[in-house]
Parts: sequence; structure tokens; C-alpha cells
Amino acid sequence: MFENTFDNVRKKHPLVHCITNYVTVNDCANILLAAGASPIMADDISEVRQITAICNALTINIGTLNERTINSMLEAGKEANRLGHPVILDPVGAGASALRTDTALRLMTEIRFTVIRGNISEIKTVSKGSGTTRGVDADVSDAVTEENLSDAVRFVKEISRQKKAVIAVTGAIDIVADSENAYVIRNGHPMMSKITGTGCMLSVLAAAYCAANPEDPLGATAASVAAMGICGEIAYEKMVEANSGTGTFRIKLIDAMSCLDADTFQNRIKVESR
Amino acid sequence: MFENTFDNVRKKHPLVHCITNYVTVNDCANILLAAGASPIMADDISEVRQITAICNALTINIGTLNERTINSMLEAGKEANRLGHPVILDPVGAGASALRTDTALRLMTEIRFTVIRGNISEIKTVSKGSGTTRGVDADVSDAVTEENLSDAVRFVKEISRQKKAVIAVTGAIDIVADSENAYVIRNGHPMMSKITGTGCMLSVLAAAYCAANPEDPLGATAASVAAMGICGEIAYEKMVEANSGTGTFRIKLIDAMSCLDADTFQNRIKVESR
Amino acid sequence: MFENTFDNVRKKHPLVHCITNYVTVNDCANILLAAGASPIMADDISEVRQITAICNALTINIGTLNERTINSMLEAGKEANRLGHPVILDPVGAGASALRTDTALRLMTEIRFTVIRGNISEIKTVSKGSGTTRGVDADVSDAVTEENLSDAVRFVKEISRQKKAVIAVTGAIDIVADSENAYVIRNGHPMMSKITGTGCMLSVLAAAYCAANPEDPLGATAASVAAMGICGEIAYEKMVEANSGTGTFRIKLIDAMSCLDADTFQNRIKVESR
Repeated sequence: MFENTFDNVRKKHPLVHCITNYVTVNDCANILLAAGASPIMADDISEVRQITAICNALTINIGTLNERTINSMLEAGKEANRLGHPVILDPVGAGASALRTDTALRLMTEIRFTVIRGNISEIKTVSKGSGTTRGVDADVSDAVTEENLSDAVRFVKEISRQKKAVIAVTGAIDIVADSENAYVIRNGHPMMSKITGTGCMLSVLAAAYCAANPEDPLGATAASVAAMGICGEIAYEKMVEANSGTGTFRIKLIDAMSCLDADTFQNRIKVESR
Repeated sequence: MFENTFDNVRKKHPLVHCITNYVTVNDCANILLAAGASPIMADDISEVRQITAICNALTINIGTLNERTINSMLEAGKEANRLGHPVILDPVGAGASALRTDTALRLMTEIRFTVIRGNISEIKTVSKGSGTTRGVDADVSDAVTEENLSDAVRFVKEISRQKKAVIAVTGAIDIVADSENAYVIRNGHPMMSKITGTGCMLSVLAAAYCAANPEDPLGATAASVAAMGICGEIAYEKMVEANSGTGTFRIKLIDAMSCLDADTFQNRIKVESR
Repeated sequence: MFENTFDNVRKKHPLVHCITNYVTVNDCANILLAAGASPIMADDISEVRQITAICNALTINIGTLNERTINSMLEAGKEANRLGHPVILDPVGAGASALRTDTALRLMTEIRFTVIRGNISEIKTVSKGSGTTRGVDADVSDAVTEENLSDAVRFVKEISRQKKAVIAVTGAIDIVADSENAYVIRNGHPMMSKITGTGCMLSVLAAAYCAANPEDPLGATAASVAAMGICGEIAYEKMVEANSGTGTFRIKLIDAMSCLDADTFQNRIKVESR
């Protein structure tokens, strides 16, 4: 499944414009390179339109946002829309402050997003206009489980309908949906929440996958979620093998992405249509 | 010693608001996660009060400060004071420029800090209002040694009295003191000064320890210093074992923190009351 | 060759002021420490002159530039010129946006640079005032090859004459030249382009080498290029040995720099005068 989707990223090596937070920006750049794409980070309002124009996709991540970069996000997003580039929103910490919630909502009003990717609490917040989080982590009470999965899938499709974007809710179980179809993905490992940046990395990766597969943003996003999850599993195995900890896990995650081939991707992907 | 202090961090997994420099911010986030705490980085003035309110502690680090973030530091610090949260100051490079020295002094005037942690040159600078550094490293002439240790302990207690904060002076020998009591800690390894960020990481870790042990900021800070030093020792051993260098050392440091358990902590801690 | 040049960095451990992008800033700090130098990052206009004054060299890197930091770059550069410190320009992404091209040109007008280091597309752009890039990567059509090497060397010397600076063009084959003499360096590995930051790291390293060898900026820069290339080769060997990927490569690169000794440097350097 998603065989071409995966291959297209390495074949087309898309260039991704990232307006992203300064916490995980280096990881974002390195995961894109590891996946066969290229990053360019630029957030000054006087260059974002030109930078977006030479790129194949745009990711907007609102972690460590500020007044200056919010304006750049709006400017870049509108230009990417005008050019028909895929645009991904990562509403990091929506619900943690009014600034984040309001900015996410404003971005969604002024920009058409191809994909919105967040944890369940962030996605609930942007869908309802308010919510709760534990900082940048999901609220435990919101978690998607096998028990509430059907409801969760329905909910994610409904948000997709509202927002006219593919919605990717990532956590222990991942759901990627448009208004009609959903993929439930069971790759990944809990260790991914013990390092910073796995969500941010996934968001820029989704941009690369969408850029390389413009005809199928739903499949592209689901494939990127699976790829990231698979790399998390491999990284965990390597970490255990090396008898080490989360520092090593983070490095092995990028190793795994740079070594991931189509066969491994096919053999490991755990995706279900709903 | 400090057994509960150590355990409390993993039990309570405090959320730490970090206003910190962009050089080592990723390491700060990862060390907190490795220790069982969680980070949130936010520096825009329109959200720092709300972010601090949902957290359990605040760290203010003045590396790569600027006019915009200084105002956010003041705003966040006052709110954390109002809420009774522990607030940690890391006066990175105080003495290297008037902006850094003056900002550290202003922060100390307008905010009540629970802990101030720096190298000896930074702490001398903030106590006297002026000083010298070698950039962000301590001036060699200032170093705490076995010879001047008694004087140094007395000096650190005196600064604590002045500043009404726990003072942590870290270097080859670490001193953590309030006005009455001091701990001298002899964990750590010189290799820790061959990577960037060990000081910054310690400051956010101290915040997590203070948040998890609100009744004993002195012991909490001392325990965080010991934990960081122990991880430095383990990382050095692993680096030598792997026949590698400082890149590996940095990763092993985070590995060590994520694997550190109460027994290892107890067996390795080298702390003395003075 | 360059034996003293190499040794001088570890002997004099220069302090390098870096005004650089937030993507690779941590790598820049760590590579300087690994090489025996020290970093200080500071970009606020009210402190850059003082910070530069306590340092031995300045690197200006225009990745993730903005209006605020451009002014700081100008201020710091002029002060470093006044003090006679080596000043290195890394025109990251010149050609990718008018802001980057214009800023590079303005910096070159108002500041005397000791060294300008970039990929071939960036250097062409700053020499002609316009150009094309693939984001922050060189345009393939610009690549220096064995076939066009003589022309490329002549071109780099000519730019050096125009710009009155040592010019370092890095890629598969590196050229470092002043108006009269050139070094062609064949160290390095293609894997270096699969992680972010090798160019940025080289630019701060060149600053450290120039600071430690003020009488010979051409030789110092060439030696820094060779050192970086050698570390890339070693890192690649270690990566293959460990059967791993680009995450590990990045760590091994810093390991290699921290372990690099004069013998290894001498045995591996592949430099030719032209």
C-alpha cells in the first residue's frame, strides 16, 4: 500500500518551506533530508513569498510563534494557496494559550490548508475554538483508544468536512481522514513521545509527501504518518539493542528515515481503511 | 540522599515553561523529557502569562536575549511569582555585555527567583553588578578549587542572603547554597564543558526538581546538580567505551538521564553538607 | 601541510562570535567546541558590539535572517572591522530571495570580509548580484567538476580580487582562493549534503582558524575546509561501520572533529595549489 506514494518522495525530492518553531527546527531539516526531500527555513515577511514560490510545499508550525512570524505565516500561506502548493498546519499547543488557539483559527480562516496535523487535543481545540492541553502534549482524557475509535474516526471526518482539509490526528493510534475516507494507522512507539519534535517532524514530512503526491493528499499524509511510525519502531528496536536511551532514540529515528526503503515500508505498514 | 527528591520528578512529571536561548533549546526540551518532566517553550509577550499559568515552574535563560524576549521574561516571571511557582534564572553570559549584566540585574529586581544558577563568573557578576567572563564560559581566575572552597561556600551563602534565592554555582566543584546551608557536589566530568548546553540543561532540570519538591528548593536544586553530574560521568564512560567524541558524549548524556534510576543516583551521588 | 595552522586552533582556542541562523546554531556551537574553539551567539543590536569586542572572530550567516538581525550583523561587522578581527560571511540562500541577495550585497558593501564561504550558486549570486539556487542548495548546473576546474579556479580568484576577501566555494570539489593563489581540496563526502548544517559549521570553523592564524587567512580557510572534509570522510566510515544513517553521520562528524589530531589531519589532507 502507498508504494508509489513512498517512492515519489525520493524520486521528486521536493523542497519544503518551513515556518516552524526554534525548538525542533534542526530535527525538521534533518528528517526532510533523510526522507529524500530538502528543507528551507525562512520566516521574514519580506522574503516568505519568494521562498514559498521556489518551494513545492509549505509547513506552518505555531510552536514559539510571535507577532512577527504570525504575519509571515499568513503571507506565506496565501502565496502558497495562490500557487496551488500543499500547505500543512501544525497547531502546536493550540489550547495552551489564547494566542495559539486564536492564531490557529485565524490561519484556518485566511489560508486553505491541505492538511492539519496535531494531537487529539490540538485538533479538538481548532475544531471547537477552545480546548485544553497539557502544554504541547495531548490531554489524557482526549486519547484515541480501541474503545472509542469508531467515534473518533467519525469525529475526524466531520472536522475534515468543516475545515475542508485532510485531518491527521496522531497519538497511540493515528487517524488520517478527509470527509469521506479515513485511514487508521497503528505504527509507531510510545517512546516517540519521550523526545521532542516527533510531531513537528511528521508535519514537515507530510508536506514533502503531499508535494510528491499532489493528486492524493489523503494517501500522502497517511503514508507519511506510517513512515514516521515505522521509523519510530525501528529506532526503538535499535535503542534497545544498543542498551541506550532517548538521546540515541532520537538519532536512530533519523537514521531509520534515511535508510527506509520501499520493502521495509511495505512490510511494516499497519494501515486500515475506515 | 535526596531519594524522594529524585523520585518525585518522575512521579509528578512537572511541566516547565522555558524562556531560553535558541542555541541549546532542543537539548533543554530533551533533557526535561528524559528526566520525566515536560517542556513548553513560549516567549511571546501575549502568551507567556497563560503558558506560565498552566506550568509548574519557569526557567528564564538570558542567552540570545533580545528586547522582545526580555519583556516576555519580566511578564512571565511576575506571573509565576504571583502563582507561587518556582522560578529559575540562568544568567548566561552575564558580564559579557552590559545588556546581559543589566538584564540579569533587572530580572533579579523585578522577579523573586527561587534559584539562580550560573558559572562562578556569572554569579560574581550578578552579585556585584559587574564582572568578567570568557564569553559564556567562566573566567579561569574565578574557578572554585579545593583550596578556596571554604571561602567560595561562604561567598555563595552570602549571595544567597543578598538575593533571597538558592544559588547554584557550577563548575569542576559545584556549590548549591541558601543563606544557611550549602551542599558541595563533586559529580560531573570536564567533558561537560566540551559541548554546549550542559549549563542550560541543568537550569531547566533544576526547575523540574523544584516543581516536584516545592518544600525544599535547596535540596531539589542540589539533587538536580548531582543528577546532571552523574549523567555527565556515565556519558563520559560510554563515550570512552565507544571510542568516540563529543557528539556521542552529548547523546549519551541524554541517554543517561532517561535511564537514570534511584539506585544509580544513590550509588553515585557525591554530596557534602557545608 | 598546514600543520601549525591546525595546531594553532587547539593552542589558542579562539572565541568566535556567531550571528547565525536558528536551524543549525547548536551544531555550530558544538563543532567550535569540538575543534578547540569556543562559541558565543548574540544577535541583539544593543550587545553585538560588546560581544564582538571580547571575541577573536565574527561569523555572519544569513540563514533565517530578519530585519532585526540584519541590523545587528551590520553593527557587529563594522565593530569587528574596527578591531581588526577576521569576519566571515556565509551567504546562505543568496539567490533564493531578494532579501537574502540584497542583504549579502549590502553586508559586502558595508563590511570588509576576510572570508566569504558558500556553495557555488551562492558565490555566483553574490559576485553578479543575482543568481539561482535550489533553496539553500547549489543549482546542479553550477557544479564545480574536474572538467571545468581550471575555469572555476580562475573565476574564484577573480571574485576574490573584486571582493577583496578570501573566497571559499565548497561542494564536491572545494576551491579556496585569494586573488593570486588557490587551493583545490578534495576531502569530504557526498553524505555531508544529506544533513543540514555542514556549510554553516564550516563557516564558523573558518572563523576559528582565521582567528588562530591571523597572518594567513587563505591558508587558515583552506585548512578549515580540509579539516571539515576529513571529518566528513571519517564520519562516513563510522556510519557505514555502524550500519546506520544520517542521524549517526551527524553525530560522528562532531565526534571526528573532537578527536582529530595533527597526524590524521596530515595523513588525510588532499590539497593542491593552483
